Amino acid sequence: MKRNFHAGRQLSSGLSLNILTEDELDEIHYGTLEVLNETGIFVEDEDALDLFEEGGAIVNRDTKIVKIPPVMVEDAIRSAPPKVVLHGRDPRHDIVLENTRVYFTNFSEGVMVNDPYTGENRSPVKKDLIDSAKVIDALPEIDFCEKALGAHDVNQDTVPLHNAEAYLTNTSKHCAFGPGNGKFLKKIIEMGEAIAGGVEKFKNRPIVSFTTCPVSPLKLISDCCEIIMEAARNNVVCNILSMAMAGGTSPVTLAGTLVNHNAEVLSGITLAQLTRRGTPVIYGSSTTAMDLKLASASVGTPECAVISGAVARLARYYALPSYVAGG
Amino acid sequence: MKRNFHAGRQLSSGLSLNILTEDELDEIHYGTLEVLNETGIFVEDEDALDLFEEGGAIVNRDTKIVKIPPVMVEDAIRSAPPKVVLHGRDPRHDIVLENTRVYFTNFSEGVMVNDPYTGENRSPVKKDLIDSAKVIDALPEIDFCEKALGAHDVNQDTVPLHNAEAYLTNTSKHCAFGPGNGKFLKKIIEMGEAIAGGVEKFKNRPIVSFTTCPVSPLKLISDCCEIIMEAARNNVVCNILSMAMAGGTSPVTLAGTLVNHNAEVLSGITLAQLTRRGTPVIYGSSTTAMDLKLASASVGTPECAVISGAVARLARYYALPSYVAGG
Repeated sequence: MKRNFHAGRQLSSGLSLNILTEDELDEIHYGTLEVLNETGIFVEDEDALDLFEEGGAIVNRDTKIVKIPPVMVEDAIRSAPPKVVLHGRDPRHDIVLENTRVYFTNFSEGVMVNDPYTGENRSPVKKDLIDSAKVIDALPEIDFCEKALGAHDVNQDTVPLHNAEAYLTNTSKHCAFGPGNGKFLKKIIEMGEAIAGGVEKFKNRPIVSFTTCPVSPLKLISDCCEIIMEAARNNVVCNILSMAMAGGTSPVTLAGTLVNHNAEVLSGITLAQLTRRGTPVIYGSSTTAMDLKLASASVGTPECAVISGAVARLARYYALPSYVAGG
Repeated sequence: MKRNFHAGRQLSSGLSLNILTEDELDEIHYGTLEVLNETGIFVEDEDALDLFEEGGAIVNRDTKIVKIPPVMVEDAIRSAPPKVVLHGRDPRHDIVLENTRVYFTNFSEGVMVNDPYTGENRSPVKKDLIDSAKVIDALPEIDFCEKALGAHDVNQDTVPLHNAEAYLTNTSKHCAFGPGNGKFLKKIIEMGEAIAGGVEKFKNRPIVSFTTCPVSPLKLISDCCEIIMEAARNNVVCNILSMAMAGGTSPVTLAGTLVNHNAEVLSGITLAQLTRRGTPVIYGSSTTAMDLKLASASVGTPECAVISGAVARLARYYALPSYVAGG
């Protein structure tokens, strides 16, 4: 029996979750603009305060509160690119983040390791980072590499550099790091340049990106500002990732937490775009509910899944690539 | 500050999952009609064969294969009511099944019980059924009562009656049973009539409904036919619930399994509507993937969730209330 092709047919290639309507997204956006304009954001870094002021924000140098008018926020959303490429050392591992495309990465950063040879739970050493990099490199399910562990057997004042070295030299996939501050970020870029074969080669295909976290509620501390600005100056992807705990450092409701989270991330994106218009950013989230018994972040819970789904939807509303916590 | 109401605002009151597009639903429907019309269904019961033949199906009395033309299937879908009420002994527990409303019930039927006093895993006795009925009655999260356990300490030839007695007399919520066959179904209705206060009172508010399973692939065995027909004669809700195992008793693909599942359930619904036009039915599913290592049904797995979501969507496409396995 012959069954010819259909002339046109709507296909679903995957599952999707409906969390927020367009009207609800609008409302979260308006609520966020109001918070940024009227409550404002605490910005610790002087250079960042300068940038906000030059960009048109109302800056109070005593309280370090920055009130950002809606037009600045929306300009920043518009100038942040909708597509971001994370380059691997091996171009086979390049990945394109845009719209609804989904990728997976490993969790970061484990403070304990289960020794694969003895079964013992212990503090991770640099050798464990190297081993985990090789596992990440081998697993096709992992699209890019986060530092799975932090080295506890090295000078703790320079640990971000040890972590970066361990991963950058042991996987050919793209690597993402929380660099600690702007100075280390610059050093890690230098490592990347050495590995890529020079400054120009790294510029064309940056094999590393950075993650930084605003402090909830509504704070961009100095290290965070430095990382955002330094990444932007180098045109390297910066994942601005809030980790609010609903019921603790942000409102207990989904809508309230989304507004709080959104205000933090958009203030960071605004700083990035003020530093260098068009610099690539990722809209990040590890926001979840607070476990009220343990006073800890309940990652991997249904609450985390709902918040992550809502955040990813919000990022898509802004046409920005997103990165959200899983479980 | 005064914030008046919005003039009109699309709200999402809950989450939903997008699994199948309208075009894909159409295609599963057309595939199902083709299977029912060209491959046909094995129907073991003579009375059921008579009904199918009188209704216009092509019946082979030797092979007991019934080929059902599309018009009969679609007539049955149309005549089955889109809304079903499951009445509780206490009217506070009445629940309305329709469209996207979601309810929860307990799993049925456990063949072992974990003794709450000794912690021992053992065969359930009738006293356990009574205890579980009281727990189900007390829990607000459970909207109606399935027989959580089967009694292993009673005459096994009449066990469906013991099960029914234990639950019907120990919860004021609606009870759903797999009655075993048509004769027991009639007896359980008599129990329901006695509890409800008479035949007429039970007719107005039937406090019991029945579940029956086609055998995959594509068989309505005698007991199943009897239950469908006897429930229809009594105008009592019948949940026609296939339990295909993708990769075992149905195709391994989601689309293939849905067509197989759909053909079974729709053949049962057609038999119900041929028995009594307008009789209430539920579109049921405990279809899931086969665990290839254990050759068992993998309930509570991601595969089960995807199939259950797709089946619920398919039931909504037909404007029929659905019942699906969870995890």
